[in-house]
Amino acid sequence: MSEFTLIKRFFTNLGAQRSDVVLGVGDDAALVLPPAGQEVVIATDTLVEGQHFPPQFEAEDIGHKALAVNLSDLAAMGAMPLYATLALTLPAMDEEWLSQFAHGFATLARTHGVSLVGGDTTKGPLAITVTVVGVVPRHQAMRRSGAKPQDLIYVSGWPGDAAAGLALVQGRLQGQGSMRATLEEKFRRPEPRVSFGQKLRHVASACIDVSDGLMQDLGQLCDSSGVGAVVRLRELPISRSLYALAGEERAWEWAMAGGEDFELLFTVSPERAAEFAQLRAQGGMPSVHCIGEIAASPGIRLMDGKQAKPIPRGWDPFR
Amino acid sequence: MSEFTLIKRFFTNLGAQRSDVVLGVGDDAALVLPPAGQEVVIATDTLVEGQHFPPQFEAEDIGHKALAVNLSDLAAMGAMPLYATLALTLPAMDEEWLSQFAHGFATLARTHGVSLVGGDTTKGPLAITVTVVGVVPRHQAMRRSGAKPQDLIYVSGWPGDAAAGLALVQGRLQGQGSMRATLEEKFRRPEPRVSFGQKLRHVASACIDVSDGLMQDLGQLCDSSGVGAVVRLRELPISRSLYALAGEERAWEWAMAGGEDFELLFTVSPERAAEFAQLRAQGGMPSVHCIGEIAASPGIRLMDGKQAKPIPRGWDPFR
Repeated sequence: MSEFTLIKRFFTNLGAQRSDVVLGVGDDAALVLPPAGQEVVIATDTLVEGQHFPPQFEAEDIGHKALAVNLSDLAAMGAMPLYATLALTLPAMDEEWLSQFAHGFATLARTHGVSLVGGDTTKGPLAITVTVVGVVPRHQAMRRSGAKPQDLIYVSGWPGDAAAGLALVQGRLQGQGSMRATLEEKFRRPEPRVSFGQKLRHVASACIDVSDGLMQDLGQLCDSSGVGAVVRLRELPISRSLYALAGEERAWEWAMAGGEDFELLFTVSPERAAEFAQLRAQGGMPSVHCIGEIAASPGIRLMDGKQAKPIPRGWDPFR
Repeated sequence: MSEFTLIKRFFTNLGAQRSDVVLGVGDDAALVLPPAGQEVVIATDTLVEGQHFPPQFEAEDIGHKALAVNLSDLAAMGAMPLYATLALTLPAMDEEWLSQFAHGFATLARTHGVSLVGGDTTKGPLAITVTVVGVVPRHQAMRRSGAKPQDLIYVSGWPGDAAAGLALVQGRLQGQGSMRATLEEKFRRPEPRVSFGQKLRHVASACIDVSDGLMQDLGQLCDSSGVGAVVRLRELPISRSLYALAGEERAWEWAMAGGEDFELLFTVSPERAAEFAQLRAQGGMPSVHCIGEIAASPGIRLMDGKQAKPIPRGWDPFR
């Protein structure tokens, strides 16, 4: 089967069918008509085999994750994703692999109403670049730069679970049963916080997604905002599975520096505390924990009770 | 220097400075406000070292070309490019390489008013994926699918020059002086036909860019339009440099199947012939040659005088 036939077979009409897609996969470029009067949001992320997932990672998981990491970027802006393009570099054309990859990608795309509108297939070491385009009402996008002293710092979900999941996949961590499954799932199939991000738009003063590790990403948010932060070690959420399989020391380290969580890290000003409490009371949200507060002086202080602790480094793709 | 510092240094405010970029490089996603009431156009293309350019290809040329191939896709739709994202996979952080790459990318971006709004940097075998977003007035984009029997087929520029340029770079073809320089330049620094594409919008019935080889891309256009074509071998434009360095046989082969030309291949209906003639008379256009006409019956017939000839295959990244 030729490249053209394969592309056509697997990537035509993949994901949600949107009436605002004027022209999808199959021409030199895609044509879309996003809702008028909104800001257009664009994010791009690459997954490289051996860097972002181990060799022999399942194609369906790769398809899911390549889209998920980009949806997570849009979630952090409070945006609604609409369209995606897919640039797939493959060592060889493998129908079975492509079919599973497309299935993983499509399932997540449909969940979030995202239509695959274009892409490129090239030969080379396995890597996947996805670009997601969406919209957000004007002047309402969350940014990294809006945090102010005294804002409380929150994180969704259970950071560190994904790092433990990777360690399990790689055999650096042992474990079986439902705890292993839970942690592996967090690494293999992160669920981007798309609808939560859109709800947060009205209450969060700043937001970033946790991809490089909680402390690293908090550092980015603080740098962008020109502030510092105090984080209370004992307030960091640690999942029961992470604690049980990784033990206390590694659990804390992965929660702070593990990376790949694709949770939302955000700040809420005292003025919006009541609104945020209302939002939480409505339900339908992921678990959210307050881990500290923004400070005027730069730098992050990690406090274990009244003791300052050194801060572990985050994920650096060039380490 | 850390990844974050390097990215910030080379990729912040790269390309044209556009007032409709609300938020550029540096947050989880970019925010833009494209002109209202138009269709949004999206294209993605990847260059992989060893597939699309030889090792030791200059970083500045890679930066230029990674953007050029995407601008060429927008040119084929008659669209105006506005924003780009850059996903760069590098074996190692190399300041000098990054600086030159950014220079090549930025120079072409500024020429076409394109602003770099986001991206990702990852570690791995050298590959570059660029996504370009632009606009085109509603219902006016050129497509591959609009060709009708009796439409004349045109191609801009001198197809085959880029293939000869690659052969020169790789030492498969010998030559010196200005002819060598001309051909190499066509491979290293293709000039996307962006403004020409926008002019063609009103006269062309179908359009595609020549990236996989003239015959291959004509085949795509014909398949999309549900038509066939007659191409007259002796009407194919062959540049003086190509003819002189490659000799007759290879010159024809490369012109028909060479790939990487990034010229526009388009059709004009008899009803628009006068308008097209007017457009050509205005000047400021690349050289354009009529190479044949669209036929009702499927398939491409290559005619050498009254003799049919076999059609050489085009560029297949998985060959």
